Order: sequence, then structure tokens, then C-alpha cells
Amino acid sequence: MILTVTLNAALDLTYRVPRLLPHAEHRVDQALERPGGKGVNVARVLAALGHETVVTGFAGGPTGETLRRLLADSPGPLTDALLPITGTTRRTVGVVDAATGDTTQLNEAGPDVTPAEWAAFDDRYGHLLRDARAVALCGSLPPGVPVGAYAHLVRQARARHIPVLLDTSGEPLRRGIAARPDLVKPNAAELAALTGSTDPHRAALDARRRGAHAVAASLGPDGMLALTPDGTWHAAPPKPLTGNPTGAGDSAVAGLLSALLDNLPWPDRLTRAVALSAATVRAPAAGEFDRAVYEDLLQRVRVTEL
Amino acid sequence: MILTVTLNAALDLTYRVPRLLPHAEHRVDQALERPGGKGVNVARVLAALGHETVVTGFAGGPTGETLRRLLADSPGPLTDALLPITGTTRRTVGVVDAATGDTTQLNEAGPDVTPAEWAAFDDRYGHLLRDARAVALCGSLPPGVPVGAYAHLVRQARARHIPVLLDTSGEPLRRGIAARPDLVKPNAAELAALTGSTDPHRAALDARRRGAHAVAASLGPDGMLALTPDGTWHAAPPKPLTGNPTGAGDSAVAGLLSALLDNLPWPDRLTRAVALSAATVRAPAAGEFDRAVYEDLLQRVRVTEL
Repeated sequence: MILTVTLNAALDLTYRVPRLLPHAEHRVDQALERPGGKGVNVARVLAALGHETVVTGFAGGPTGETLRRLLADSPGPLTDALLPITGTTRRTVGVVDAATGDTTQLNEAGPDVTPAEWAAFDDRYGHLLRDARAVALCGSLPPGVPVGAYAHLVRQARARHIPVLLDTSGEPLRRGIAARPDLVKPNAAELAALTGSTDPHRAALDARRRGAHAVAASLGPDGMLALTPDGTWHAAPPKPLTGNPTGAGDSAVAGLLSALLDNLPWPDRLTRAVALSAATVRAPAAGEFDRAVYEDLLQRVRVTEL
Repeated sequence: MILTVTLNAALDLTYRVPRLLPHAEHRVDQALERPGGKGVNVARVLAALGHETVVTGFAGGPTGETLRRLLADSPGPLTDALLPITGTTRRTVGVVDAATGDTTQLNEAGPDVTPAEWAAFDDRYGHLLRDARAVALCGSLPPGVPVGAYAHLVRQARARHIPVLLDTSGEPLRRGIAARPDLVKPNAAELAALTGSTDPHRAALDARRRGAHAVAASLGPDGMLALTPDGTWHAAPPKPLTGNPTGAGDSAVAGLLSALLDNLPWPDRLTRAVALSAATVRAPAAGEFDRAVYEDLLQRVRVTEL
């Protein structure tokens, strides 16, 4: 199975309003609830593709219960191995302005995880690794989890020779990358924050020097740039797709892992990642994708060796 | 006891962000959860003032459970008589921009109430009226409740000679006012929408002609204007107070009811309403007030007979 770790899972709310006007009162036309957090989105896409997937991390309080109920309703072979905590799972609110299609995002910080809960998670993670063919460590850290958490989890996977992908930002990324993950998937802004360089190619080179065996940088509508031990490639959809980009990066992670487990070479991994990512832009919510768009794009993503 | 009716109760979330920028991603610095909906706010203020208060309306789903748990923690003699429903209690999100102090409000529409649930509520309302010394009918209607709901509830209270206050807007106000409530408490915008007149005095006269025995219009920082069978008064704080106006109108309703039950004359009712309303502007959330500010203002609100 593929193990996805979401230490700061979330109940994602999407509010559609006719037009977002700061300091005004808005009637929400449509309110959607989804299980969220980057690793949860990755897992939902993997399971929809047919991969046996296990979700772990933390969940607590009424929002945590709702998250787990929604997760149980997700299609595909997905197993909930979230650890119950006394704190309350955070919410995120995405406000979609129907007039422009743009999204304004509000993210709660997350629950206070106690040292005992973090220790219990570490133990469970060790057990879950026994059956894992690949691991994805995704998203922000809730308060109470040490900033070096991802570095620790990367080392445990590496010690068992399990491929590990890290998708986070800021100090947790800086520390995690030094533990030599097989792959990191930053976006351009995260790469720039890590390395100080706004040139994605230069920044990705720097990220490899910092410890990542491979770097697959998501570049929004411009697709992906991958610097790997096997070579350097750029992959892009035939034309940019408009829609809601929330979760596009998580779908790219799912595509990379899915193709890795199918033993595909890097150009085909990038094709799958870019096609899934673009198909997610055309879907209503993170963790979901438009299957027809995905299958069409699989034939049409352009990969160039650099 | 005082009965407050909140057909569209809410779990109120307050998110504090450094600055609200449309189309950007925000980390929420502080997230507060409160039991909400206008009638619930009124009840919390009445109970904090020491009045035996009963909250009824609908609550359902995980958000409804959280609302009831928070309500049970509210100070004062407050009884929860909310009716469980299969739908899910709505959320409201108030985003406070820390840079300006302004609030952007996002309100979910509310649960689908079934005809059987509405009939069960009607039955419960009849039972609760037996012990009620006054009734407040507050806020919007959830989908499924007939638009004439307030008119029906006003008539039932009037038939039992129980003073009834109506605080709503739009079509439910238009219909409710025709059932001849003892008092309505619109703000200037609601009065203008009802009557077509932006002059509060003229609009309040029209509202009385439409059926309200008395009209107490809240005018924001300018206090209140009351047109009653006993006379016409304007009441205002000595100077406008800055802060979060959310819930100020609900506290005014609580002040009017509290003073009515204490058999105070209209000028003293308005003093209490304006003092509580201003003291709520100085408190962090709707349904709460700054007691020191309230007690100070009781001596300093100016009431003028017109």
C-alpha cells in the first residue's frame, strides 16, 4: 500500500459567494464540506486511481469526526489510520468569488498535539511502514509537533528503503530536505523561500544540493520541472486550463507516486502528474479530478528533456 | 421565563487575520467558536443579566452538537429547548481584519427543515408559551420553514396575551409585522427595505401603520429611535464607541425585553438597550458585553422625547 501522512488534516469548507467584498455581509450560495489536508487529498486521488492507500496523521473533536465520516465515503481502496487526539481538527475555508472564479483561502492553525500523542503517532508510523511501498509526507505541522518532525519521518522510511516524498514548506521543508528524501515537490514560491532564488531551475539545483535526491517543482499552469538522478525534464499541458487550482499540487504528488509504483520512467511519471494536476483544476474540489480530462491529457502532455 | 426563538441557529466562527486580501491565502491567527444566531445571542445576554431564559429553534448535525455544548457553558439561567433535526446547523464565519478592525461576514443558508420538523416545532412552541412572560422571534428562516412562519408565531403569542418582539428582515418581516407584534426592532437598512424610505422616522411611522404596535429602530452608533403608543424618543450614547458591531442589535433586543419585564417606562427601556448595545461593541463577540461599560453607560445614555 501507499502511506500518506497528514499531520495537520483539515475539514475543508468551500463557500461560493456571488462576489467577495471585504467588510460586507455575504449570503453563501453553496457550502461544500470535504476531507482535507494535503496528504488526505493525495490519498483520495491515489485511491480513485485504484491504489491501496492508507491515510494516517491526527484527527480530533467534532470536525475530526466529520472528516473521518467523509473520508469513509471516498471512493476506492482507502483505509483510515488517523490517530485520535484530544485537540480539534482544524477547518479551512475557501471562499470562491463566482464573478471572477478566484479563491480566497482562510486556514486555521491546527490542534495542539501533546508530546504523548506525537510519540503514539511515531509508533503507529513505524508499524504502518512495514506494509508501505511508498510514503508521502504532506502539508503543514500542527502546533506541538516538533519542527524537525518530517526529517525524523523521512529518516525512518529511508532506513527501511521505502521511497519517501516530502511536500511541505518553510522550516519543516528546510529540515526535512536535509534528511535526504527521495523526492520533494515544492511549488515555485516554496522553492524560492527555501533557496532565495526565483529561478525554478537554479532553485531546484540548490534543493538537490541540500539533500533531495530528486526535485519535481510544480509551476502552476506551466506544468512541472523535474531534476532527477536520471535527467532533467519539463512537462506541460498543451494549453493552460482555467479553474480552481486548489489541490492541483496534491494531485501531482499522487501522479508521481502512482507512476513510481508502476515502475514508469521519469517522463511518464511527469506526464501522469501534469495530467492529474490539470484534471484537478477542472474539478470542483481538492482531492478530486475530472477523469475524462485526465485521460485525454495523458496523450497530450508534452515532456521535453533539458 | 423569557422565550427566544432562533429558527436558523448557527455555529459562529470568528477568524482574526492580519489583513484580509481577496484571492490570497491567509493563516488564521485566532479562531473562536460561539453559539450563534440572533435569538441565541439575545438569550445569552438576557441570561447574563440574570433573567430565566429558554432558547428554542432547531439544531442538528455535528455543528448543532457543538452549538448545544457551547450553549450549555454559557453563564446564567439559560435552558436549551432546541429541537433536534436531521439537517445540519449552519455556520457563519466572521473574518476580522486586524489592520482595520473591520469584519467580513459569510453566512451559510441553513438546514433543510422538513414539514414534520416544522410541525413538531410549532407544537413545542405552544407548550413553551405556557410559561413565557415574553417572546423574542429573531433572525433569518432556514430553507423549508414557510415564509409566513413569524406571522404564525406572532399570532400564537398574541392570542395568549404574551408580549412578542420580532427582529428579522425581508419578506419574513413584511409578513410578520402584519400579524401585529408588540414590538419590532429593525435597523435602518431593514426599515428602508420594508418601507422604501431611507428616513428612519418616516419609515418607522410606516412600520407602525403596517401593524407593529411599537417600533424601536437601531441606528448603529447613533443609538435608537422608538415610536410607541406612549410617545416617540431618541436615545444615544454620549459618544460613539468603536469596536465590533456584530451582535449589538441582539443586545438591544435583550435590553428592551429585560426592561419590559422590569416594568420600566420607555425612556428607561431605551437606556438599557442602548447601553447594552454599546457595551457589546466593546466585547469580543456577539452575545457578550463589557459589564463595566454597560453600567457606566446606564448613567450616561441621553434620551430625548421627540
